[in-house]
Amino acid sequence: MQLGFAMLCAGSVRAKNAMNIMLTNVVDAVVGSLSFYLFGFAFAFGSDFTTNPFIGSTYFALNNVPNSSYDYSFFLFQWAFAIAVAGITSGSIAERTQFSAYLVFSFFLSGFVYPVVVHWLWSTHGWLSPSSTTGLLFGSGAIDFAGSGVVHLVGGVAGLWGSLVEGPRVGRFDAFGHPVPMRGHNATLVVLGTFLLWFGWFGFNPGSFEKILVAYPTTTDQGNWTGIGRAAVVTTLSGSTAGIVTLFGRRLLVGHWNTLDVCNGVLGGFVAITSGCAVVEPWAGVVCGFFAAWVLIGLNILALKLQYDDPLEAAQLHGGCGAWGLIFTGLFAKEEFVIQAYDSGKSGVVRSYGVLMGGGWGLFGAQVVELFAIVGWVSVTMGPLFYILHKLRLLRITVDEEVAGLDISSHGGYAYTQTEESNGRFYTDYVRMQNEQS
Amino acid sequence: MQLGFAMLCAGSVRAKNAMNIMLTNVVDAVVGSLSFYLFGFAFAFGSDFTTNPFIGSTYFALNNVPNSSYDYSFFLFQWAFAIAVAGITSGSIAERTQFSAYLVFSFFLSGFVYPVVVHWLWSTHGWLSPSSTTGLLFGSGAIDFAGSGVVHLVGGVAGLWGSLVEGPRVGRFDAFGHPVPMRGHNATLVVLGTFLLWFGWFGFNPGSFEKILVAYPTTTDQGNWTGIGRAAVVTTLSGSTAGIVTLFGRRLLVGHWNTLDVCNGVLGGFVAITSGCAVVEPWAGVVCGFFAAWVLIGLNILALKLQYDDPLEAAQLHGGCGAWGLIFTGLFAKEEFVIQAYDSGKSGVVRSYGVLMGGGWGLFGAQVVELFAIVGWVSVTMGPLFYILHKLRLLRITVDEEVAGLDISSHGGYAYTQTEESNGRFYTDYVRMQNEQS
Amino acid sequence: MQLGFAMLCAGSVRAKNAMNIMLTNVVDAVVGSLSFYLFGFAFAFGSDFTTNPFIGSTYFALNNVPNSSYDYSFFLFQWAFAIAVAGITSGSIAERTQFSAYLVFSFFLSGFVYPVVVHWLWSTHGWLSPSSTTGLLFGSGAIDFAGSGVVHLVGGVAGLWGSLVEGPRVGRFDAFGHPVPMRGHNATLVVLGTFLLWFGWFGFNPGSFEKILVAYPTTTDQGNWTGIGRAAVVTTLSGSTAGIVTLFGRRLLVGHWNTLDVCNGVLGGFVAITSGCAVVEPWAGVVCGFFAAWVLIGLNILALKLQYDDPLEAAQLHGGCGAWGLIFTGLFAKEEFVIQAYDSGKSGVVRSYGVLMGGGWGLFGAQVVELFAIVGWVSVTMGPLFYILHKLRLLRITVDEEVAGLDISSHGGYAYTQTEESNGRFYTDYVRMQNEQS
Repeated sequence: MQLGFAMLCAGSVRAKNAMNIMLTNVVDAVVGSLSFYLFGFAFAFGSDFTTNPFIGSTYFALNNVPNSSYDYSFFLFQWAFAIAVAGITSGSIAERTQFSAYLVFSFFLSGFVYPVVVHWLWSTHGWLSPSSTTGLLFGSGAIDFAGSGVVHLVGGVAGLWGSLVEGPRVGRFDAFGHPVPMRGHNATLVVLGTFLLWFGWFGFNPGSFEKILVAYPTTTDQGNWTGIGRAAVVTTLSGSTAGIVTLFGRRLLVGHWNTLDVCNGVLGGFVAITSGCAVVEPWAGVVCGFFAAWVLIGLNILALKLQYDDPLEAAQLHGGCGAWGLIFTGLFAKEEFVIQAYDSGKSGVVRSYGVLMGGGWGLFGAQVVELFAIVGWVSVTMGPLFYILHKLRLLRITVDEEVAGLDISSHGGYAYTQTEESNGRFYTDYVRMQNEQS
Repeated sequence: MQLGFAMLCAGSVRAKNAMNIMLTNVVDAVVGSLSFYLFGFAFAFGSDFTTNPFIGSTYFALNNVPNSSYDYSFFLFQWAFAIAVAGITSGSIAERTQFSAYLVFSFFLSGFVYPVVVHWLWSTHGWLSPSSTTGLLFGSGAIDFAGSGVVHLVGGVAGLWGSLVEGPRVGRFDAFGHPVPMRGHNATLVVLGTFLLWFGWFGFNPGSFEKILVAYPTTTDQGNWTGIGRAAVVTTLSGSTAGIVTLFGRRLLVGHWNTLDVCNGVLGGFVAITSGCAVVEPWAGVVCGFFAAWVLIGLNILALKLQYDDPLEAAQLHGGCGAWGLIFTGLFAKEEFVIQAYDSGKSGVVRSYGVLMGGGWGLFGAQVVELFAIVGWVSVTMGPLFYILHKLRLLRITVDEEVAGLDISSHGGYAYTQTEESNGRFYTDYVRMQNEQS
Repeated sequence: MQLGFAMLCAGSVRAKNAMNIMLTNVVDAVVGSLSFYLFGFAFAFGSDFTTNPFIGSTYFALNNVPNSSYDYSFFLFQWAFAIAVAGITSGSIAERTQFSAYLVFSFFLSGFVYPVVVHWLWSTHGWLSPSSTTGLLFGSGAIDFAGSGVVHLVGGVAGLWGSLVEGPRVGRFDAFGHPVPMRGHNATLVVLGTFLLWFGWFGFNPGSFEKILVAYPTTTDQGNWTGIGRAAVVTTLSGSTAGIVTLFGRRLLVGHWNTLDVCNGVLGGFVAITSGCAVVEPWAGVVCGFFAAWVLIGLNILALKLQYDDPLEAAQLHGGCGAWGLIFTGLFAKEEFVIQAYDSGKSGVVRSYGVLMGGGWGLFGAQVVELFAIVGWVSVTMGPLFYILHKLRLLRITVDEEVAGLDISSHGGYAYTQTEESNGRFYTDYVRMQNEQS
């Protein structure tokens, strides 16, 4: 999954920053691993006598793990989600951010901000959790099966703040506020990344059924195998539909068939269905993807209007489609599947489900509360963090460095070296330019 | 799997068309997904009171699925095969085809032509199926375990017709009919694609054992775990042998060691063994790969002689080696494994097996019938389709567009942008050139 | 896994040799497959009445496989290890070696040298095996769970000899012995390769538990599922720690943040933990990775001092970190996990474990013996092989070929073709240059 992000990001930025963006993706993975191991898992799933619905407090550095509730494979699965979040945010602030800022924000995001949201939604003590043992919000709890909100919305909102605080890249908008195209340097890598993420999503969405089995250790597997298959089919249909709609929609708006539009559309469809993949019918996946494509197209037009510059469209894609995914689940969740997924098929359960399926407003309300709670929480934590980094002059690189490209200024050379001489020459040029200026 | 094709194709075409070929691969996947979901699965596996051996007729849009015969995971597995077929055909017509033609042919191929062949071979009602409930052809039925014929021959023959109708690329053969080399732009991508397909084949060939379990819901797993391992070993040996033979064979013929030859050889070996991987001994995999390499080498020489231009060698590789795979299975299938795979090890079964193993001509005859039936069916459906598209001027792009490259003419820019200015400059040149001509 | 190596290697060499290095990786895979099928598996695991602790002697060409001890999936798993070894060695001798030399050494290494070491450590008859049926060395046997020594040290030492016999690349060190940077041509491929290997390691390290189940067919799965999860967590923590330490360590030493350093650091951490991943606590993984990073940094400085040129740092990374991994296991192996992994949790077992865990010197001694035995065995077999190839003038290419690049001189063209004309032009230049010299 992280590999998919790395390739997607690398292909979407300009060649002069390819080395930088890949480094940040690798560093997200390794810093996030340690941060989530030391603190994050504890904040997310820790529980003891003083357990509260806001944050966990045991299992630091996997102390007392494995135990009867959680084993190592559960930790690994959660870890894979955790490092994906920082990867999403990295995209929004690409091509203009100091390397040390990545170290700070990814440690903070993977180790604290994200795990708190996980605790709310996915632990058995969270105040939004649909499997809470201390009472369900609105008699339902919010359903965010594999993380449209927990993962994608968190990453997207964090990226939105980072990108807003930094402002657009140099030259992204001209003196009249019109956008200047800044094309990524390698579309092949974008396609490679998209397919790898597609493959990874088959692991995340259907794989989240394990979470249920953990939450209810006494459950039988009855019905869950069918659920896993259905989740994969729904995911595929949502992504495919969103891809086609984006392809034709952008064709009408822009005038040519664009590979990257399809790729982003497919990903938007996946992001949106991530919340509800376990509890909707296959045809609802088509509906989900259709609207996800228009959410993405609309937000991209809006971003250009507002001169918001997000090199990977991360806020629009993960934030916007993630938010739509939460709403979608509140509309289309089917009673039978909700009971199957969260009550293990027990009879006599009264639980709210999708509005349009006749399940009342309980679930829909909880989904909306989740949406606002996540946007608020991430904003009050990540917004100030980026602002403080900005004030400390630790966030954005200098204009000179940005024009020269991060690879030369910070990483000692470009990602690509076609001839042996060229790399040295560019570097010499850059050093001379620096000297002349000083 | 589709990722492997996308990388293989992208690396094998010229840089100016890289964007186009990747778009077609992504679109094959998303269009194929919807087409197979809406119609294809129904044509392939649908059955009711009026069931016939030619085409299925229920389960449109997964209506009534899951049921006691088919669940979602079976659909997903079949879906992965379906989108691969259109990917094969895309290779044959690369670098000179209008984008809208891809939309039409991949919808038709994934939604109708291919599913009908699946129904013949892999449903329990098909007239060629080795597990037919209404009588086996020649007392045997044709064995096409993971699709040398169903998948690869179908895709290859469709590509052959597409490429024949279109004719060779501009400049592929000079005035005297001699071939002019047109090298792909990125051999790294070809190697990447080959290894990804290798990995994918481990999913397809051994994974097809699930099909058996579905066909015989009452079967025990007895023997099948060993069969899965054997299929993977046989597949590996066939691919490796074909790769080595192609390497040395081409070294003798052309004079240098060529990475791409090995890659194509390995893939040829995989294609050929796909039909029989479950029913032959490991040593037979070596035999299969040896001849597959020579089939590929021979057909490539023939294609140059006949001025047939197939940028990915798809017709030669998937068509030729796929056909050889069908014959091979008719020669080397072993009684014990055939009974294990198709009769679940029941005793007292009388069933034809490989000619060279002493099993009589029943299986061999059925394999030959399958070969001709597939070539005929795909020819009478896809041939006219490509011809109609050609007559409607919807198939081939103009010579100007072809020389300029599809990425500029249809997709708004190249796949690779090393400097920010260059892309705009090329596009401007192209527009000016167009203006001057008109 | 092999794909990861291919991408890693391709990105790390100069563009003019990209085709060559990828060909060698593909050929390693196909030659290694046949060699291991015909001889290797037999030397490694073959056993009959005359079984000895040094080398196996049955199961050539999978004769009599499957049987009660080994089935096909076990062969496949071992095969994946076997082809990785030759891939490691290829990196050390990259950019200056004749193609035919690869054919010879990879056949010999995968088919004989490596399988003998496997027999020592992983068969139930090996003199170093911790599950030997004929008495454990020092009452313990050496623990090399997934091959820090068996795979990585073997590959690294072989590469060391190859690279020593060949000498550095032309121009790698100037007249005063100072190193001249030779950057790889594509850092994106290196990152891609690293993540693919990361993914592959999750298969190798935790997957090796199957070996135990095979060695003790009567074992229950009790405890092993937890062990698999723990192995994956330990592996991740070791790699992440090593990556961060290398990043900061190299930042202090060299002055910029380098993506490739992190990648190599992560791989070094994986190599080191491979030996002990099943028998140590998660926190020990952090310790392992910390020291692995410094081993790698130190050996790289030493290599520059000694004018040793290894394009992929294979000897330092796989050899050095692999050796550290063996020592590490001797220090930190925990009693409970050793008994769980090698005695299936039987009570009443007296077995040595890690020195620092209070387990005595038996295991540590066996680990040191393994280290010296592997270095010695590979040196006396591969050293002379490379020397003979060198004397027969079959090893190194000519200076002209090296300067021009292997892709032009041996493979008929470059890996990358941006314009149709350029490739032909370079080739013409090269041929004319050759003619003028002769």
